[in-house]
Amino acid sequence: MNDARWPWLILVPRRQSAVELIDLEAADRSQLIEEAALAASFLKAHAGAHKINLGALGNVVRQFHLHVIARTVGDPAWPGPVWGHGAARRYEDSDARALIAAAKASLCA
Amino acid sequence: MNDARWPWLILVPRRQSAVELIDLEAADRSQLIEEAALAASFLKAHAGAHKINLGALGNVVRQFHLHVIARTVGDPAWPGPVWGHGAARRYEDSDARALIAAAKASLCA
Repeated sequence: MNDARWPWLILVPRRQSAVELIDLEAADRSQLIEEAALAASFLKAHAGAHKINLGALGNVVRQFHLHVIARTVGDPAWPGPVWGHGAARRYEDSDARALIAAAKASLCA
Repeated sequence: MNDARWPWLILVPRRQSAVELIDLEAADRSQLIEEAALAASFLKAHAGAHKINLGALGNVVRQFHLHVIARTVGDPAWPGPVWGHGAARRYEDSDARALIAAAKASLCA
């Protein structure tokens, strides 16, 4: 997510018609939760997060997706949820590239 | 959750020391996501929900727990998240008992 306030990944299963968790097959659900754990581990190590927030809302964007967000005590929305909180602060290009490279190195190894 | 604005279940793995998803074993994660799917199916059928929201935040209550919430277009927080939105509206006792009985009949069969 292009919002520098929180390191924030979004997992999108390659199942375009899935809206709800129950639209996924059990094997896909299992893969999703394991990939969420990997994403959480990466964010925890990379961002020094105090807490990982997970969420699958989909009230606006219908295609099933899972948010994995690094939260820090005292961050702009703490301890509330990040969704709908104020306006996104875009990354500097170099910062975005660095985060993406670190995520790829951790998750695509 | 005792909040009549939204049918809302909370899944709490019997792993008292778990704070993050990554504190659970893979087998527990797999069970969690399958039980989340069951809870979502129940809420979808019982409440006629337009969307199920899933969330594991834990910014306030640290022990790992997963929210499964039935959302309806036009509900008090739609399309925003329910966490931190206004004050809970407590169930009438009879309504609470009916929801709990329906959940048990569906989930503990």
